[in-house]
Amino acid sequence: MNFLNEIAGEYPNAISFASGRPAQQFFSLAHWLAQTDRFISHFAQSCANDFEVASSLIGQYGKTNGIVNELIAQQQLRDEAIACDSSQLIVTAGCQEAMALCAMELCKRPSDVLLVRSPTYIGITGIADLHGIELAPFRSEKDSELLPALAATVEQAERCGKSPRALYLIPEFDNPTGTVLPKAYREQVIAYCARKRIAILEDNPYGAFRFEGTAVPTMYTLDTSGCVIYLGTYSKTLCPAVRVGFILLPRRLFGDERATVDLRERLSRRKSFLTVNTSQIMQAMLGGVLLEERGSLARLIQPAREFYRRNRDLMLTALAAEFPQGQSIAAWNVPTGGFFLNVWLPFKFLRAEAEICARELGVLTMPVSFFAFDDGHDQCVRLAFSNVDPASIGEGIKRFATFVRMRAGKP
Amino acid sequence: MNFLNEIAGEYPNAISFASGRPAQQFFSLAHWLAQTDRFISHFAQSCANDFEVASSLIGQYGKTNGIVNELIAQQQLRDEAIACDSSQLIVTAGCQEAMALCAMELCKRPSDVLLVRSPTYIGITGIADLHGIELAPFRSEKDSELLPALAATVEQAERCGKSPRALYLIPEFDNPTGTVLPKAYREQVIAYCARKRIAILEDNPYGAFRFEGTAVPTMYTLDTSGCVIYLGTYSKTLCPAVRVGFILLPRRLFGDERATVDLRERLSRRKSFLTVNTSQIMQAMLGGVLLEERGSLARLIQPAREFYRRNRDLMLTALAAEFPQGQSIAAWNVPTGGFFLNVWLPFKFLRAEAEICARELGVLTMPVSFFAFDDGHDQCVRLAFSNVDPASIGEGIKRFATFVRMRAGKP
Repeated sequence: MNFLNEIAGEYPNAISFASGRPAQQFFSLAHWLAQTDRFISHFAQSCANDFEVASSLIGQYGKTNGIVNELIAQQQLRDEAIACDSSQLIVTAGCQEAMALCAMELCKRPSDVLLVRSPTYIGITGIADLHGIELAPFRSEKDSELLPALAATVEQAERCGKSPRALYLIPEFDNPTGTVLPKAYREQVIAYCARKRIAILEDNPYGAFRFEGTAVPTMYTLDTSGCVIYLGTYSKTLCPAVRVGFILLPRRLFGDERATVDLRERLSRRKSFLTVNTSQIMQAMLGGVLLEERGSLARLIQPAREFYRRNRDLMLTALAAEFPQGQSIAAWNVPTGGFFLNVWLPFKFLRAEAEICARELGVLTMPVSFFAFDDGHDQCVRLAFSNVDPASIGEGIKRFATFVRMRAGKP
Repeated sequence: MNFLNEIAGEYPNAISFASGRPAQQFFSLAHWLAQTDRFISHFAQSCANDFEVASSLIGQYGKTNGIVNELIAQQQLRDEAIACDSSQLIVTAGCQEAMALCAMELCKRPSDVLLVRSPTYIGITGIADLHGIELAPFRSEKDSELLPALAATVEQAERCGKSPRALYLIPEFDNPTGTVLPKAYREQVIAYCARKRIAILEDNPYGAFRFEGTAVPTMYTLDTSGCVIYLGTYSKTLCPAVRVGFILLPRRLFGDERATVDLRERLSRRKSFLTVNTSQIMQAMLGGVLLEERGSLARLIQPAREFYRRNRDLMLTALAAEFPQGQSIAAWNVPTGGFFLNVWLPFKFLRAEAEICARELGVLTMPVSFFAFDDGHDQCVRLAFSNVDPASIGEGIKRFATFVRMRAGKP
């Protein structure tokens, strides 16, 4: 994240495929803030319908686990087909806090290990690094290799006296790879983790942004044994500054309802000593929008999703134009949603290469090696299409391709 | 905090001297939210004065260290006589995050020790407990005993191979004791800590609420050697739901400017992996209010401060009426500001006693033993006067006194 900030600061006029931020032109801050009152009226039902009292109480400290849990549960049902009770939810200060709480609580003993794919989102790596949590990364070129690679890593850890306790995954439009884990493999992983009593942290920031095809059920809904903890955020559907995310616990953690209650209490206690509770004003803003939208964000995010789809198409078209078939100096995946795609090159694309692209060609990219634990992705670049001017995509890809051809010796 | 919530939930009609919340009748949520635009206009000066662009960017992710740092620096200068640059500030998700970040960063090695007074605020105890930070508590009946007790504890820790790294203090209107540490003792502690390279975490949530007398300079301003890290919050001056606090680093940490930059970067990195950044919408609301108030919150908080002062007086009057001089079954301090006072009793007042008061007499109190590390405060009760209806204070103290007389065998 620091590299990204530094380089973006140093080359403010470069075309950026580096930032995976949502497109801010779709934020309606004034309108959303105006919905706060809608939630306060709703909240007032528990205060003898006294709006003034309700408004004052929104300004206070409040329940550690949140006050919009029911509306979130409703939205998850409508938009993600996730059925849950509000008591299974803990509202957090963005999804990063959700990840931090779960990682710290599940992996609190020195022998506990957190499993991650390589490459994976650096948000989880950073938490592990700062809190002394041992990571066990594993790599799988193909989806069919995921389970064998996971199992081998678990067994290896166990042989060293370690306890793999959680697996962090973004199965839908992964960051950084942009890929979707197919249903059959989700089920395999769930069955394995259930057997091994490994909690799956299913992070789903991009799932709402599918461009085509049928949605794959979330691992949370596929799970029947209570091993999936679902992590959600409103940073992409509403905006990052709302800083509201959530932890959704399984109804019966590894089949045990009491274990869910116990874990909820431990996470809640942890949260109370990190951020006390999530801003009730920001919860009220989100709640107001959810009330206005009658429980679904599908309508609200439609223009942004269409924008992301169009940007992806522009990027794919530009890549195809710059790297004609047969020339084969670059290959890329075609994501069916989300914010990212990956380009594979015939040479290493590391920090130095990203810096040359920024400095010499005015185009910002993210080496996937920044997200990886080995050199298996040294030739891979992440291009984000979520927060770039559509009119610049062609030019940006052209610049990137110029660098690639030069470096590959095929001008 | 759990005890407080549980008992408040169980006896919702009891008169509560337990909660140290600010008085919510002084919150002006709608008005404050309307000031968001004022800050956006201000922020737009860095976006070619394009309000729409500025508003969109407020909705985004943003600088980890915050965007209202300059306004906070201004307010600290105006209201607390604290001179600092905005670069010394890290804006946090409430002061609890500020405490957590500092404690975790300063005491990250297993041998590091965090020094606290006994009793102390449970927010710091909880952090230490959850993150495996060793606490070294020390007790001092009188202010003159503070330094000897501190020094003895430091030496004891060092003899055990430990490194005392930080000291947490609320020198102004302490929670739970309500006391003020006089200037001379502040200076003693600073001199000692500077010599021992122990960072002082000066938490000052109540300093703005002085009822009478002259303000004692903050330890931050008394410090010339760069050992005081000041922790601030807008939870009491604005409202808790703003969830904005801050860390103010010394200009030269232990005399070294580079050390300040280094610590800021490490705290910032930690924050980026806990909450990413503090809600820019809530920062904009605070920023708007600070702009409206021209950099000082003195005018805004005046009615609340007057309310707290009046409540303290009502409580003191009621205590004097219920426990006449000479009868001497209860003694209490007279706080010159803040939210709390303490009553000393001739018998132990622990959880069981608090429960009897709640159940039998309908009055909620907090045993100071909940904040203590030894039995030295078992006979002491914290009474909060910040968030109780003035009309109930007399009746509440009467009920409390009834219990005390019964238990003391002096009906």
